[in-house]
Amino acid sequence: MSSSPQSSVLSTTLRSDPCGLLRRADVGRTVQLGGWVHRSRDLGGLVFIDLRDRTGLVQLAFGPAWCAADVQHLAAAVGVESVVLCEGEVVARETERVNPDMGTGEVEIRVTSLKIVGPAVTPALPVARGRGEKMPAEELRLRHRYLDLRRPELQENLVLRHRLLQVSRRYLTDHGYLELETPILTKPTPEGARDYLVPSRVHPGEFYALPQSPQIYKQLFMCCGFDRYFQIARCFRDEDLRADRQPEFTQIDIEASFIERPDIMTLAEGLLGVMWREAGHANVPAQFERMTYADAMENYGCDRPDLRYDLRLRDYSSVFAALDFAVTTNALASGARVRGVVIPGGAAWSRKQVDELEALAKGAGAGGLLRLRKADGAYDGPLAKFLTEDAKAALALNDGDLALFVAAADRVSSPALDRVRQECARRLELIDDSAERFLWVLDFPMFEQDPESGALAAVHHPFTAPNPEDMAAFPDEPARWRALAYDVVLNGTELGGGSIRTSDPATQSRMFGLLGIGDAEEQERRFGFLLEGLRAGAPPHGGIAFGFDRIAMLLSGAPSLRDVIAFPKTTAARSLFEGAPVSVPADDLAQLHIAVRDARPGSPRE
Amino acid sequence: MSSSPQSSVLSTTLRSDPCGLLRRADVGRTVQLGGWVHRSRDLGGLVFIDLRDRTGLVQLAFGPAWCAADVQHLAAAVGVESVVLCEGEVVARETERVNPDMGTGEVEIRVTSLKIVGPAVTPALPVARGRGEKMPAEELRLRHRYLDLRRPELQENLVLRHRLLQVSRRYLTDHGYLELETPILTKPTPEGARDYLVPSRVHPGEFYALPQSPQIYKQLFMCCGFDRYFQIARCFRDEDLRADRQPEFTQIDIEASFIERPDIMTLAEGLLGVMWREAGHANVPAQFERMTYADAMENYGCDRPDLRYDLRLRDYSSVFAALDFAVTTNALASGARVRGVVIPGGAAWSRKQVDELEALAKGAGAGGLLRLRKADGAYDGPLAKFLTEDAKAALALNDGDLALFVAAADRVSSPALDRVRQECARRLELIDDSAERFLWVLDFPMFEQDPESGALAAVHHPFTAPNPEDMAAFPDEPARWRALAYDVVLNGTELGGGSIRTSDPATQSRMFGLLGIGDAEEQERRFGFLLEGLRAGAPPHGGIAFGFDRIAMLLSGAPSLRDVIAFPKTTAARSLFEGAPVSVPADDLAQLHIAVRDARPGSPRE
Repeated sequence: MSSSPQSSVLSTTLRSDPCGLLRRADVGRTVQLGGWVHRSRDLGGLVFIDLRDRTGLVQLAFGPAWCAADVQHLAAAVGVESVVLCEGEVVARETERVNPDMGTGEVEIRVTSLKIVGPAVTPALPVARGRGEKMPAEELRLRHRYLDLRRPELQENLVLRHRLLQVSRRYLTDHGYLELETPILTKPTPEGARDYLVPSRVHPGEFYALPQSPQIYKQLFMCCGFDRYFQIARCFRDEDLRADRQPEFTQIDIEASFIERPDIMTLAEGLLGVMWREAGHANVPAQFERMTYADAMENYGCDRPDLRYDLRLRDYSSVFAALDFAVTTNALASGARVRGVVIPGGAAWSRKQVDELEALAKGAGAGGLLRLRKADGAYDGPLAKFLTEDAKAALALNDGDLALFVAAADRVSSPALDRVRQECARRLELIDDSAERFLWVLDFPMFEQDPESGALAAVHHPFTAPNPEDMAAFPDEPARWRALAYDVVLNGTELGGGSIRTSDPATQSRMFGLLGIGDAEEQERRFGFLLEGLRAGAPPHGGIAFGFDRIAMLLSGAPSLRDVIAFPKTTAARSLFEGAPVSVPADDLAQLHIAVRDARPGSPRE
Repeated sequence: MSSSPQSSVLSTTLRSDPCGLLRRADVGRTVQLGGWVHRSRDLGGLVFIDLRDRTGLVQLAFGPAWCAADVQHLAAAVGVESVVLCEGEVVARETERVNPDMGTGEVEIRVTSLKIVGPAVTPALPVARGRGEKMPAEELRLRHRYLDLRRPELQENLVLRHRLLQVSRRYLTDHGYLELETPILTKPTPEGARDYLVPSRVHPGEFYALPQSPQIYKQLFMCCGFDRYFQIARCFRDEDLRADRQPEFTQIDIEASFIERPDIMTLAEGLLGVMWREAGHANVPAQFERMTYADAMENYGCDRPDLRYDLRLRDYSSVFAALDFAVTTNALASGARVRGVVIPGGAAWSRKQVDELEALAKGAGAGGLLRLRKADGAYDGPLAKFLTEDAKAALALNDGDLALFVAAADRVSSPALDRVRQECARRLELIDDSAERFLWVLDFPMFEQDPESGALAAVHHPFTAPNPEDMAAFPDEPARWRALAYDVVLNGTELGGGSIRTSDPATQSRMFGLLGIGDAEEQERRFGFLLEGLRAGAPPHGGIAFGFDRIAMLLSGAPSLRDVIAFPKTTAARSLFEGAPVSVPADDLAQLHIAVRDARPGSPRE
């Protein structure tokens, strides 16, 4: 009687088989098992234990016909979550006792010997839960992570994560990418405000920084001629955490030489396809849809549109230009546009329901939301009496439609209408949960300009290459330059992004200058080691990085990043289980040549 | 004409082929290449460039018969290490011009167009070196790492490292191991004196620590039922660095449940075998030799003996007990032993040469080295006149032998004689460089006892399980307990080590107590999260960790760890290239609620 190959891989000195893989074909075998007592039932004459390991559950049976009284007593007494070793015979269950919900449901083990090797105290929270039983609060689960991680759901998430790691590396290796490791103890970066710093014991008063990403290192690998690099890299960002961020996170980091945008995009499509298929999603397109940033903002008000529903924004400026309606007329006169979205069926919503939408728009910065609805052939709303026949024709509303407009600068109307349309899609249940719409967003602007000061900031990062066509066409208007950047988006979530880099050191210096770092000495101090690499002869290169935690979360269907990270931190950057961070004796800090001080400058304390 | 599959994987929008893979079969093809100008020669009528990329070199040829004058001028002018793109036809070289030293030596490219895309300043150190040309000093190479990493030797090291990473993970995955990631921002550990600490911006006065190893996490994974864990983990140790240490290093970290020592040893033998074969070492034994710690110390004076040569230590106490020689008699009377090593041929060494050996022994703590040599049938040395016939017979020296003795406690004689025998093996060229002697060293003592205070310290770590036989036989003499630990050694170098862990929380508490952490509250504060995991039901488990950097160094034949790490630090823990660590403005530190202070306590400075 042979067991499955998987089973034999997992056999050890102490166990012949893992629990969850025993099948009818194993009947008659004597097996040694080890595992956790998931549940137990003492029926007087018989004792049953569901024994659990990573592979699943199997039922142990203890009865006087095959085991000694002391063994049965031990089985009746063992506490849940204790670890036992046992030996017994695999027997077939009678037909009416077969459990179709268990992989091992056709068999049980008639145990002849039992040893409790890891007795458990009463668990602080239950591992085995009945159907529909509520989960304990997350804080409690994080505090007792050693128990929460026993739940099959979390185990499956981490097993999937493991498989995604393996297929990703294999795919990249097969495509000629080298896994090259970069330092964790590195130099504080330009975006230093979010660096984690590490004091040096050996060099008093000096600090390393943990990397926010291996960006500069991967570009240097290209300058050195490694041609293709990847790393599944731990990155660190010290910032106030949003609900779904972690202070340390994992990214699949990729860079390649002698390439242009299509090379990286094709590679990324293949890599995501491999991961999605590994998770059982069969229908990933070979090529993803593409959209320019300008189109995404125009039609969806957002640079990562969820294409599972339509509800596009439109420009109604020309319609409103012909109306004698003060609010919009004034806005149009000041150079703004009137943009809006038409919600089929929205006319049926109550005033309160539409007020909620307006609150969302205001929360995103809009002054208000102009409403117009058409029901039973009639128009309703502040605008209704100003509508001309031409305007009605141009609006082309159907009965039951609700139209919502924002008259403002695009940078205001886009996020406002984006939030409105997202909420409407949810309300109207327009989102097909089973659909997966992958999308490339291209041609991001290189810079974002402060509307007041006119100062430029990099939309991606300072190493992204501007589109050379734009540099030639508008040499003195960098705010008009598009970047050779690309983001990949799935159903409104950004999976990753990257760009072609500036490989010419003079252009790179100019970019730093445009970003306000014009001083050559400061450039050298902050970016010298990249500039030195570029000056030594740099190939055309570019890359991409994917948020691996997020991908693992999406593919496991988990609600939070914390469900795909073994030992995560809370949104307050604390690990509740280990208990970090903690205060440290002043003597230990003295060894590091630092002292804790109050936030107020000038008042150190020991 | 088809190119190799490897070649097609590396083709991109900007190049049809990598440089180093073009062969005779490609003759007649028009190719687009990109690479670095390795060397160039202007022969007047013709210009030749050796173009380099990761795959090797290919010769570009520029001549008036096939290329325009401006292309040839550009080729003549381009500086070494510049990056170019070119197009041309692959042609066969005439027989007498074939270069057998180059993979591409049968062909050259008649270039028709050339573009300099990455002009290079004059390199600060040469990348292309003539045969026998000396390497620049390491400090210079580390300072200009972006150039040094262009050397094919370093590139090959990192490519091998990449391959070792891939085969290791594949092997472990195939054996049911899950790659599970553990935090880098974690809790300061018991061995806190060597922790790197990271101040928290969010939690004033509190610190994370970088992990010295994922030890506790991997044991928790076992308590949680993940069954088999691995991680190729970055670890950190803040200590004064020896010549061949790095502040951050990589280990292959492994842990498994329901196992005993043989399970881990078999797995480790398989894993090392896979890595060694990947590096082209075919003859790794399926099972490694085994030796107890006691035998290793007795016969080699060392717990990681190099078995490529013999020169064993022997106990000569009984011989010396019968001699009337004060030095040794006194030592023996005090309970010490007289141990020694016989060096065939050593009798020919000068007094100075033997003095050098004695200096080594003294450096290792011995009071001196007692010498005896036999040449031409006669004995020579301070001991000679005290030798009885029985003693001579027992010593059994051959003509030409030099015998060297240390009369002292084993903890003194072992390291002293170990250094002596290592030096003798080198002098006598007894070491077969091509031999690979893998060895398991087993049964380490659990504790090492301070000879003065009697205090115990863990030889491996506090989580290692003592041998239960010894605990039963000598319940009150923990200094006599052996540990269920194992080290794997190759040619005198430790590759890795591990142990079966204590899975019983009561035994673990007792171990902490023996190590001087008797206070229950202190145990909970320092190790609570492990103890909690064990109390929740722990399986028998154990594991091993391998020094991956060292393995990559051995298998690449590199002289230093710095040659298998892309961006290493110096022995002073500095990265010369990026420039880390660095001082940080006091304002930035204030954000982290810390200030730099002098080493003298009580005198903070801003």
